[in-house]
Amino acid sequence: MIAVTILGNNSAVPSHNRHPSAQFLQSGEHHFLIDCGEGTQMQMNLYKMKKSRITHIFISHLHGDHYFGLIGLINSLTLNNRLNDLHIYAPEKLKSIIQIQMDVAGSGLPFQLYFHPLEKEEILFEDKKFSVECFAVNHRIECWGFLFREKKNPRKIIVDEVKKYKVPKSFYENLHQGEDFVNEENEVIKNELLTIASEPPKSYAYCADTAFHEPIAEKIKGVDLVYHESTYLSDLEKKASDRFHSTAKQAATIAKKAGVKKLLLGHFSSMYDTLEKFKEEACEIFPNTEIAEEGTCYLA
Amino acid sequence: MIAVTILGNNSAVPSHNRHPSAQFLQSGEHHFLIDCGEGTQMQMNLYKMKKSRITHIFISHLHGDHYFGLIGLINSLTLNNRLNDLHIYAPEKLKSIIQIQMDVAGSGLPFQLYFHPLEKEEILFEDKKFSVECFAVNHRIECWGFLFREKKNPRKIIVDEVKKYKVPKSFYENLHQGEDFVNEENEVIKNELLTIASEPPKSYAYCADTAFHEPIAEKIKGVDLVYHESTYLSDLEKKASDRFHSTAKQAATIAKKAGVKKLLLGHFSSMYDTLEKFKEEACEIFPNTEIAEEGTCYLA
Repeated sequence: MIAVTILGNNSAVPSHNRHPSAQFLQSGEHHFLIDCGEGTQMQMNLYKMKKSRITHIFISHLHGDHYFGLIGLINSLTLNNRLNDLHIYAPEKLKSIIQIQMDVAGSGLPFQLYFHPLEKEEILFEDKKFSVECFAVNHRIECWGFLFREKKNPRKIIVDEVKKYKVPKSFYENLHQGEDFVNEENEVIKNELLTIASEPPKSYAYCADTAFHEPIAEKIKGVDLVYHESTYLSDLEKKASDRFHSTAKQAATIAKKAGVKKLLLGHFSSMYDTLEKFKEEACEIFPNTEIAEEGTCYLA
Repeated sequence: MIAVTILGNNSAVPSHNRHPSAQFLQSGEHHFLIDCGEGTQMQMNLYKMKKSRITHIFISHLHGDHYFGLIGLINSLTLNNRLNDLHIYAPEKLKSIIQIQMDVAGSGLPFQLYFHPLEKEEILFEDKKFSVECFAVNHRIECWGFLFREKKNPRKIIVDEVKKYKVPKSFYENLHQGEDFVNEENEVIKNELLTIASEPPKSYAYCADTAFHEPIAEKIKGVDLVYHESTYLSDLEKKASDRFHSTAKQAATIAKKAGVKKLLLGHFSSMYDTLEKFKEEACEIFPNTEIAEEGTCYLA
């Protein structure tokens, strides 16, 4: 399961008590931050989330509403004497922005900070259970979406059955992977008798600031949960296009083309004090749409 | 009158719903910001203050909790199409920190930004009604306090009296300045008959992050309202000294030595979830002390 908590759902200028972009993603022991607008650490305080748990931070692009909170977060982790490694994935120039601000403060970091510049569409992170890849979106400056995928979970062993069929422990890993068991009498014991399927692996896509850009639909095909920006309503489609942003209908069109399960809308312009219309417009095209509400946790 | 609204009263790590340093100062038509920690623009939204009114920003030093909110504020002013000049007074290196972040965003400013590096104790700003000067405090890195002073207000003309004594309008400015009037018969009409005194000019001192530093008392002698940091209670005087911070008692000692009218305490360490003890300790030495509460406006 992947759980995504929205920390900010507004576009550039904070208003209507909505905050700039940031999302906290949990899956098993993984705790990731996606974008980090100003005030992200305060939002994490408000929603009782432990900043210390974050191990990887993914920054989509270098417009301030997506990263101005990062240096403050790093500063607080430093003052709280964090010791664990921290990995940041971001456009290259962010490195010197962080560095210059640490230099003037005259203080070092008590932990290791690994900076990974985003350069091409590739897998950024991978372990046994999880992977993160980036894909290009279409914004005024270099900008990246992120695709988070759980790996196929191992099948679960049925303890009574493996005892009954005398499966040796050395074969358990093969059972996890779905293999049948062949006993000493050369009888084939079907894997389905010995194990049960785990939850299917889930996926989440973060389509950062972008104009309507159909290639995104290819990248996020069949994903369980998709966040797509929808800065404007459809009457401002021209404005959206001029500013390399999307409307709610355009976000829904991408979700529909990609055949995803659920769509989350966010990055709302400050010109809107209420958000119901975004959902209405998107649902005409893609019914399983929700507004990304701050403080709410959405599951994939 | 000088009105100072506290936007943040906490030290480096935001906690207990307290925010990093920032204060909004109003006097007549002047609207100044003193320090600008992360989230200052959201605090201004919360307390219904117009960001667009700020003309001058004074940054004491380059620890993040005193300036991380500045770039976000500038970004919002830009997106809101500000046209009026903005003046920033700060240690020199802040200029390149702002510049690099504007450069990566690929956007210019619609208004003129004047950056004034702080270099020595001097008058930073002066007009007919007001002046701002900076003075050195004693912190781990270069750090400045600020002293805000109203100028002597002109005396107010009593309309009926100037008519009675036939004072020509060309002499009104002399009356404002306190001169007596000599009429055509060479009679001296005392100024006190023709005018009334205005409110005495007020003053406010912002003693930024500093160790206990007695020369500050000389700089702020007789000031009406003084903000002095008090990061720790007096049992942690050694820690305060090691980190170039002050205790509540030390802040009160400076206020007493300087013979000021009123003391505001702020910049509280995140280790304290309540603040009453700060007031108690300071009041033993300087009774007219208050805790700088966020959202509260204090008058000098």
